[in-house]
Amino acid sequence: MIPNLNIVPFVSVDNMMKLVLRVGIERFIAGLAEYVEEDFRRWETFDKTPRLASHSAEGVIELMPTSDGRTYGFKYVNGHPKNTREGRQTVTAFGVLADVGTGYPVLLSEMTILTALRTAATSAVAARHLAPRDAACMAIIGNGAQSEFQAVAFRALLGIRQLRLYDIDPAATRKCIRNLAGFGFDITPCQSAEEAVAGAQIVTTVTADKQYATILTDNMVGAGIHINAVGGDCPGKTELHRDILMRSDIFVEYPPQTRIEGEIQQLAPDHPVTELWQVITGAAPGRANPGQITLFDSVGFATEDFSALRYVRDQLAGTGLYEGLDMLADPDEPRDLFGMILRAAAPAPAKAPAGA
Amino acid sequence: MIPNLNIVPFVSVDNMMKLVLRVGIERFIAGLAEYVEEDFRRWETFDKTPRLASHSAEGVIELMPTSDGRTYGFKYVNGHPKNTREGRQTVTAFGVLADVGTGYPVLLSEMTILTALRTAATSAVAARHLAPRDAACMAIIGNGAQSEFQAVAFRALLGIRQLRLYDIDPAATRKCIRNLAGFGFDITPCQSAEEAVAGAQIVTTVTADKQYATILTDNMVGAGIHINAVGGDCPGKTELHRDILMRSDIFVEYPPQTRIEGEIQQLAPDHPVTELWQVITGAAPGRANPGQITLFDSVGFATEDFSALRYVRDQLAGTGLYEGLDMLADPDEPRDLFGMILRAAAPAPAKAPAGA
Repeated sequence: MIPNLNIVPFVSVDNMMKLVLRVGIERFIAGLAEYVEEDFRRWETFDKTPRLASHSAEGVIELMPTSDGRTYGFKYVNGHPKNTREGRQTVTAFGVLADVGTGYPVLLSEMTILTALRTAATSAVAARHLAPRDAACMAIIGNGAQSEFQAVAFRALLGIRQLRLYDIDPAATRKCIRNLAGFGFDITPCQSAEEAVAGAQIVTTVTADKQYATILTDNMVGAGIHINAVGGDCPGKTELHRDILMRSDIFVEYPPQTRIEGEIQQLAPDHPVTELWQVITGAAPGRANPGQITLFDSVGFATEDFSALRYVRDQLAGTGLYEGLDMLADPDEPRDLFGMILRAAAPAPAKAPAGA
Repeated sequence: MIPNLNIVPFVSVDNMMKLVLRVGIERFIAGLAEYVEEDFRRWETFDKTPRLASHSAEGVIELMPTSDGRTYGFKYVNGHPKNTREGRQTVTAFGVLADVGTGYPVLLSEMTILTALRTAATSAVAARHLAPRDAACMAIIGNGAQSEFQAVAFRALLGIRQLRLYDIDPAATRKCIRNLAGFGFDITPCQSAEEAVAGAQIVTTVTADKQYATILTDNMVGAGIHINAVGGDCPGKTELHRDILMRSDIFVEYPPQTRIEGEIQQLAPDHPVTELWQVITGAAPGRANPGQITLFDSVGFATEDFSALRYVRDQLAGTGLYEGLDMLADPDEPRDLFGMILRAAAPAPAKAPAGA
């Protein structure tokens, strides 16, 4: 979209918000979901590797690369639960797409907002294949930064109109209700997770503490529901009681990563799971009967970020919602990097006087 | 250096050139070399991992992360030898420093130029510990993009004043001579690698072909010299005949990476090598006697990029040679990412009229 080889389009936070609003949040998530599903469908073409994580006492910094052989992408993302106490985000992220043929980056984008959008889109893609067909009501346990994105994604892809919300902090639930006011939901705030789950065909758990927690216990989960477990996403962080996992058919993105980071870190390393891409391609069954409990143990995978960056790139043209970054050295003569520096010191050629 | 938590300082190619020129190329490399040596000296404090490479038919894209527990850094770098035929760089790079405590990026920088500077600085740091003490003359085989940086680094750190240059393309040698005109070298262009090596106490090999090549054969290498092998830096790419390696004491950055990428990929996986950091800390001997052939088998390691980014960060203050990138979402209320997007749609509050 920019002719100069050495200029990389950059989508700032401000421009990402403008792009999402221009497309419309619900339409943006729906469009992004199609890219996510398309990339799951061609799963076998991707280079896949568990994320490269650098853990510290306070959190984690991760690099998540992947490639489909033509385009390479990676995301930088941190997770620092204590950040909110200092006015920072728990999770921030940015990402890059590059051309495999030349190695040149072709897009740099904020991904804090984009990750929230792609996480919700992926949850809804999974639920489209796994949730009861007549699902009308979703419980959301944990009403923090990701909750509204989940609600809008499930409305866009599955037609969910009824929400039952619960958070240990009632202010979070009030914020969620306020933000979703214009989206046409029928919302019931609840006093407990148990109350929220009652009558819901889909249960989304999306809490944020970095610890083993038990958001759902076995007695709360009835037959036939779909559980969308989003919050457990790193070693030592889970949300569901082990007994629920034992009663569920479990679907995951990329087993080598989910075994370390997901709810199934509580289970034996050979506990059977189904890969989501196989359900999407039809190679494995999704929901087989109405009484079944399906569980999408979502931790987020590099291909989803790749899909999101692809979607953003394809929406950008003609919007002007990016800046060009002078990020790649572009000497006139590729072997003369040193000379390029020397020439930068030379005074610019004098301009002809006006009118000459 | 910028008060807003969510704004990341970005050093463009243009600003990097201005920064290098403001500091002075030779002084910049010398300063960077001190940071490189300092980080080798505290080698054991770093998280180390071989680079994460994505190979394709045309080249490679790599991520090189490391952390010292307080600061995290990574470099994105590609290697595409065919790029020069299309007016692109073989190697381009950018890098990021982040705060381990919060996970927030604190610097984004071009690294095409910076990698050239740090590679030369690292070579000179190694040679300061390994080369004959009275070295006055260096041969440079391969006079492409990295050659002048090597020359200036060896002048800055070892006082090298005589250069003997050879490249299969005489135009590259002429370019190198032209670029080094103002630096006070006594330069001899040569007709062959053998001629270039004659009389040199240090031999730097820095050719660019992605293949097994033999830039130096055994009969060309006399006793007592130091070989700085820079060009062989990926699987399948070497520059030196195996017989030279067998006669040399070999020093490397990070053995797990060098065994795959360096000259020593030609040798048995247990062939003895010495780690450079051990020489620098005094834990292992460097040059032990005048007749010894020392070989620095350099492939470039993540800590060197970390040192370079640290150096740039420390030089930036007060220069204004960076832009602030709106790269990290910064909602007023960290849990309200969705609301931040909604509020971006609202018209800005009307300003009070002038004079009111």
